[in-house]
Amino acid sequence: MNRLKPDHRYADGPDVPRCAKKEFGVVLRERVRDVVDGKRFQRFVIGVIVVNAITLGCETSATAVAAYGGALSAVDTIALAVFVVELAARLYAHRLAFFRDPWNCFDLVVVGVSLLPAAGPLSVVRSLRILRALRLIAMVPSMRRVVSALVRSIPGLLSLSGLLLLVLYVGSVVAVNLFRPSGDPRFADLGATVLTLFQITTGDGWSDVMRDLMVTQPLAWLFFVVYLLVGTFTMLNLFIAVVCSAMEPDTPAATDAPAGTDTPAGTDDRVLADEIRALREEIRDLRLERVGR
Amino acid sequence: MNRLKPDHRYADGPDVPRCAKKEFGVVLRERVRDVVDGKRFQRFVIGVIVVNAITLGCETSATAVAAYGGALSAVDTIALAVFVVELAARLYAHRLAFFRDPWNCFDLVVVGVSLLPAAGPLSVVRSLRILRALRLIAMVPSMRRVVSALVRSIPGLLSLSGLLLLVLYVGSVVAVNLFRPSGDPRFADLGATVLTLFQITTGDGWSDVMRDLMVTQPLAWLFFVVYLLVGTFTMLNLFIAVVCSAMEPDTPAATDAPAGTDTPAGTDDRVLADEIRALREEIRDLRLERVGR
Amino acid sequence: MNRLKPDHRYADGPDVPRCAKKEFGVVLRERVRDVVDGKRFQRFVIGVIVVNAITLGCETSATAVAAYGGALSAVDTIALAVFVVELAARLYAHRLAFFRDPWNCFDLVVVGVSLLPAAGPLSVVRSLRILRALRLIAMVPSMRRVVSALVRSIPGLLSLSGLLLLVLYVGSVVAVNLFRPSGDPRFADLGATVLTLFQITTGDGWSDVMRDLMVTQPLAWLFFVVYLLVGTFTMLNLFIAVVCSAMEPDTPAATDAPAGTDTPAGTDDRVLADEIRALREEIRDLRLERVGR
Amino acid sequence: MNRLKPDHRYADGPDVPRCAKKEFGVVLRERVRDVVDGKRFQRFVIGVIVVNAITLGCETSATAVAAYGGALSAVDTIALAVFVVELAARLYAHRLAFFRDPWNCFDLVVVGVSLLPAAGPLSVVRSLRILRALRLIAMVPSMRRVVSALVRSIPGLLSLSGLLLLVLYVGSVVAVNLFRPSGDPRFADLGATVLTLFQITTGDGWSDVMRDLMVTQPLAWLFFVVYLLVGTFTMLNLFIAVVCSAMEPDTPAATDAPAGTDTPAGTDDRVLADEIRALREEIRDLRLERVGR
Repeated sequence: MNRLKPDHRYADGPDVPRCAKKEFGVVLRERVRDVVDGKRFQRFVIGVIVVNAITLGCETSATAVAAYGGALSAVDTIALAVFVVELAARLYAHRLAFFRDPWNCFDLVVVGVSLLPAAGPLSVVRSLRILRALRLIAMVPSMRRVVSALVRSIPGLLSLSGLLLLVLYVGSVVAVNLFRPSGDPRFADLGATVLTLFQITTGDGWSDVMRDLMVTQPLAWLFFVVYLLVGTFTMLNLFIAVVCSAMEPDTPAATDAPAGTDTPAGTDDRVLADEIRALREEIRDLRLERVGR
Repeated sequence: MNRLKPDHRYADGPDVPRCAKKEFGVVLRERVRDVVDGKRFQRFVIGVIVVNAITLGCETSATAVAAYGGALSAVDTIALAVFVVELAARLYAHRLAFFRDPWNCFDLVVVGVSLLPAAGPLSVVRSLRILRALRLIAMVPSMRRVVSALVRSIPGLLSLSGLLLLVLYVGSVVAVNLFRPSGDPRFADLGATVLTLFQITTGDGWSDVMRDLMVTQPLAWLFFVVYLLVGTFTMLNLFIAVVCSAMEPDTPAATDAPAGTDTPAGTDDRVLADEIRALREEIRDLRLERVGR
Repeated sequence: MNRLKPDHRYADGPDVPRCAKKEFGVVLRERVRDVVDGKRFQRFVIGVIVVNAITLGCETSATAVAAYGGALSAVDTIALAVFVVELAARLYAHRLAFFRDPWNCFDLVVVGVSLLPAAGPLSVVRSLRILRALRLIAMVPSMRRVVSALVRSIPGLLSLSGLLLLVLYVGSVVAVNLFRPSGDPRFADLGATVLTLFQITTGDGWSDVMRDLMVTQPLAWLFFVVYLLVGTFTMLNLFIAVVCSAMEPDTPAATDAPAGTDTPAGTDDRVLADEIRALREEIRDLRLERVGR
Repeated sequence: MNRLKPDHRYADGPDVPRCAKKEFGVVLRERVRDVVDGKRFQRFVIGVIVVNAITLGCETSATAVAAYGGALSAVDTIALAVFVVELAARLYAHRLAFFRDPWNCFDLVVVGVSLLPAAGPLSVVRSLRILRALRLIAMVPSMRRVVSALVRSIPGLLSLSGLLLLVLYVGSVVAVNLFRPSGDPRFADLGATVLTLFQITTGDGWSDVMRDLMVTQPLAWLFFVVYLLVGTFTMLNLFIAVVCSAMEPDTPAATDAPAGTDTPAGTDDRVLADEIRALREEIRDLRLERVGR
């Protein structure tokens, strides 16, 4: 379990042999930490997450709600209670160190959202309860590693994403000025145009948009072809940047082989050359000794 | 023929010079194995598969069935008989070792399906008879190698596929809660929504789905843009994982050069260094001998 | 000009100093070859190809034909005459060696097609005259190199293409059996179904096809999801195979460095090891001589 | 700030200790250059560009124009004045060296376009004012680097782009001849056909185009399948060429390690071999000396 590792980072208690007298609070905190970071507890929480994800899925079915509505909402309440207790225990155990792990902050937000009053204008929040299922990512080490790798590749993409956003914005201002007179709702205002150009950048149905415009503005194709070439070319390079950042082994955790056991060829060759040079000197000595004899 | 190689794995008969008296069963089994694993028999089976695939294709044409219906179904019955006899012979020849090769299990399932009664509710099974044509993959070594490589790359994709499924599930529960009130049949229940989000992940016609929803829910674009960015980014990384796993030569079977003839540079350099060190010691001995003289 | 290089391959004339008396035919053939393979002639032919491509484009416009129809068809006839004369001259100059270069065969077919009678049922052939413009590829060295690289990558794709065709065929037979009863014209017979599945493999509008079918067959999504996953996964690997074959420098012409100057490390190391072994033996001899003294 | 670097290239003033008496013009030019290439000025210009981009976006909203129209156009005029003064100052400071940097030329064109009279037939030009926002690329070093890399990869793509254009042109002439009789407006003339085939090359809605044609010309699929295979294969290789050119470190600025410190293995091995050969000769000498003794 990956979750166990951060435990060492949290080592805010003494590592020296425990003194006879110790504050009760410290002992309790250590006991709670042992439980909270233990494998069993982690598995239990994963189980609760999965069950909760399934009941939230069932709640989308009117039939299931009519038959087992009470049970489903009971499971949901219990799961939420478990999450709240779990997070409170982890927060108590690790104190402020809890907030150093971004996954903990993610957990806190996702669980916190569910505690908001879900009535009235916030009813949308209610449908975000399922985001709790994403806690599974933090709990399953292999998924956690994958997502960490994805997140780590984002900073390298900022320049290209910024460029793409700039192209999108500039293209949209041009497009809204050119195509608003045609009365097409997809170019009604700047927001709608940004959305339409985003659609064109993904390549979905761009020709329909163009052909509809060409009825009134026969030169519309010019904008579309230019925008498509520029946008796709930028996207393609964004894609390449993702591939490159995914392929280069920049994180020590990614390389499994211990460094140092496998010296590069250059170093090894230098060792060889040194050996041979030493050998040559010995032979020269051998020769000089004889000559001097 | 690649199929011939597993023969050695099946060597459950004695390798020692054959005794004069031998059970009749052992001799028969060996003879059957020689025939079944022989090139001619393999070619014959490939021929039957191809002919059967063509007749099954012809059976889809009402005209062809009207004209040659009897002949077509006769060929089909004969081909099925050949397959049953072939598999029975192979099973007899290799006994339980037969089940060790996953391709044999595949053959068994594909042929077994055709023996099910095709009437009544199982009429769908009848249209699966063509899956027998996939036996060609197991029979043609180059295709077999390609498919083995594809299958081998699957385990490395499990984390990412799991992540994609989780994103799909969470996205669907959110979407069905948000968009069911709009009455769109594509968001009528959880199943339909999962299918719709799968469609959006492949990028086909996502803008049509969004624009239809935006008539009643003008903020629907928010969900679509977020989902598209998250989903496409995950897909892109799944794609990169496939490329990486295809490019790294992790399986010894994939490299055609015999191992051992081409030792890696590091090893070779170490050999060189050892040679030189030994050389140096001999020269030191030479010198010491002289000094000691 | 790349075209000049094959000249050396065609060197079927004597390289020795020319004798005083020489057959007239040989002299003429050499003169013709010098002209035909010369830079000026190549540029002239490129010019004719470009002009002809433009006039063939103009011929598609009814207005242009009405105004300059005579001139356009005159240019076309002249261009065709130039091509026929050029190919005849090249064929005369290089004799059978002419057919060794696949680009020459391509030229011959493309020009030959234009000589067919274009009336009656062969009027389609008339619209293939523009294929002559593809001769430009053979004439411009950089394009020629690109296309040669593309063509060279095809053999490595045969297994995967075969697999894709098999998946397409098997999928089509299954689909036509399952979906013909729905009356959808896209699944009317095997041919139409193969075309529809090809469309689905390219990912264009697959969801429309599926949703139309799901009106009568609610489980149709099962086939589509399975086929899409299998087909796309195979396509993705075909794509990777293309990338791999494009990236590996397997052709000596592709690597600019002269072969031989840069021996691979393994060979070099073996040379080193041999040297050291020889050295060691000499030292052993040296020692034995002394011991034997 | 990357913009500061070109300063050294512009060093057209004396580098020697300044003489007491100096022309007033030279002093002024240096002062202007210091200001214009200074960090503060650059930041101020970036700020003006961003503010101007936002106001140009606001001008697309009829509501915003109705409420703050005067303010928006005032900001636009001020921004334009700032740009004109900035470029004039930079041109004065660096004289003709100004034109050596292609980004400066880009700035000049983008700002110059805004000075054109925007009335009458040139009203389209007015909507191109937003292109000024692209000046941000030249101002922000990380974006500038990304775009420079993109532009640098273009020359390597010329052959493949030319090939793609040739395929597009030849395909269009064939298509317009074959499909114009069907009366489809997408194949009405050569221009419309080129646009349609461009759409098909991007893979958007190609099946709709084909199915519409197949109503009158049942063999239309033949052209589409062939064109799609050829076009997609070429596109795929264009894509690979972009990836390759992006991945190879051809620019000295891209490789951080100083060249020369890390000699390739081959060279090193040759050094080793020379050492060993020299060693062997010494031993042979040693032996000969003894024999000759």
